Amino acid sequence: MRNLRLEIEYDGTNYAGWQVQAPQKKKSIQEVLEKTLRKILQEKVYTIVSGRTDAGVHALSQVVNFKTHSDIRPDKLRIALNGLLPEDISISKVEDVDLNFHSRFDAKSKIYRYTILNRLHPCALSRNTVYFYPYPLDLNLMRREARNLVGRHDFKSFQAADKKERSSVRTIKKLKITRVGDFIYFDIEANGFLYNMIRNIVGTLIEIGRGRFPQGSLKKILSAKNRKLAGPTVPAKGLCLIKVKY
Amino acid sequence: MRNLRLEIEYDGTNYAGWQVQAPQKKKSIQEVLEKTLRKILQEKVYTIVSGRTDAGVHALSQVVNFKTHSDIRPDKLRIALNGLLPEDISISKVEDVDLNFHSRFDAKSKIYRYTILNRLHPCALSRNTVYFYPYPLDLNLMRREARNLVGRHDFKSFQAADKKERSSVRTIKKLKITRVGDFIYFDIEANGFLYNMIRNIVGTLIEIGRGRFPQGSLKKILSAKNRKLAGPTVPAKGLCLIKVKY
Repeated sequence: MRNLRLEIEYDGTNYAGWQVQAPQKKKSIQEVLEKTLRKILQEKVYTIVSGRTDAGVHALSQVVNFKTHSDIRPDKLRIALNGLLPEDISISKVEDVDLNFHSRFDAKSKIYRYTILNRLHPCALSRNTVYFYPYPLDLNLMRREARNLVGRHDFKSFQAADKKERSSVRTIKKLKITRVGDFIYFDIEANGFLYNMIRNIVGTLIEIGRGRFPQGSLKKILSAKNRKLAGPTVPAKGLCLIKVKY
Repeated sequence: MRNLRLEIEYDGTNYAGWQVQAPQKKKSIQEVLEKTLRKILQEKVYTIVSGRTDAGVHALSQVVNFKTHSDIRPDKLRIALNGLLPEDISISKVEDVDLNFHSRFDAKSKIYRYTILNRLHPCALSRNTVYFYPYPLDLNLMRREARNLVGRHDFKSFQAADKKERSSVRTIKKLKITRVGDFIYFDIEANGFLYNMIRNIVGTLIEIGRGRFPQGSLKKILSAKNRKLAGPTVPAKGLCLIKVKY
């Protein structure tokens, strides 16, 4: 028995997310990957992912592992997968790992990037990977307020209202906001994320940057542990899983 | 009567090119733009483009002008167009220009970029804007050979075999080949381009970089004025019109 670890890039635009729970018109990325693996390996495999991504969310380097009896060479498998998978899913790495390696349990932290296009007109070429927001934003104010999020906190205010996890305490290790030309990047590293957490944090920071929430609101929203006080959820398409650290 | 000048970005993936001559399943970008302009301006307009782009070719800043009787404000027109156009076409600028301005005749030069993804595995997120080429390329050799193309030459060897223009003499002002990570960029500026000229030049340079054409071949191919000697035409999706200079 072997344990194989894959690194995967995908454009989430045409998918119902990593995994589908309810019946959906769109396919899940997991479904497409497992079907292709089965075709190549001639056996059914069950993939374990570092963490699910929602419908429309992208990944530059998602990590997956699975057990197999196949003796296929890792580079052969990578080439076969890239030949058979649709063009919006690509495999950048395949390697043998210790049988105990577990993509989800062993992940130390994840880095996500949320991208805003901040100018008067939308863009055609990057339309599926940015959130077009044409109004002026006070980035320095956003950065000052965002500092309150770094560290170990109960992020209940930023958790999707209909989702409950055992604990809503997470540790944000880094939160960097940068502007390059017309693009604003939110780079967030944490030991884990609640459902919609990043999209709710970015939505709240936008309200702050636009001047619709008074200064000091972020601290209050965080300590209130009440989703209703935070800003709106920004669209999935601006979000991309950049890296999983082990 | 006014003369309005537009700057347009588009993702050519889903279009039959700027203009369609034969009946096509896909729409042309011109068709979609003119239909939208007619809806907003309530009159039929005829757009003049700096130069047509082929099916699948993109533009970061294409230039178009047209005459209109409308008194709509330029910024209002930009907002209305971006609201009504499909997301893969966006308008970055609308301005009043001199009645004599002509997008095609007044263009001094055009800058195109051709992008190759040069690594072992394809990429999902940029799949529509790069040509995936996994084999090693000798960039220094390509640069040395490419120097022969700069200047005023008869580019007949790089013109699509089935297209005839009055003259195949053009002036390449700049041709720069750079690598950034896994991407190789060909930035080419010329006073004009023949049909498929850039895609044939890049295809030839790839053959040289791969070592399939001997050193010194580019000079010979150029002076032979014979399309059959040059390399293959690389895919349209790697090509993007970056800027038109006036």
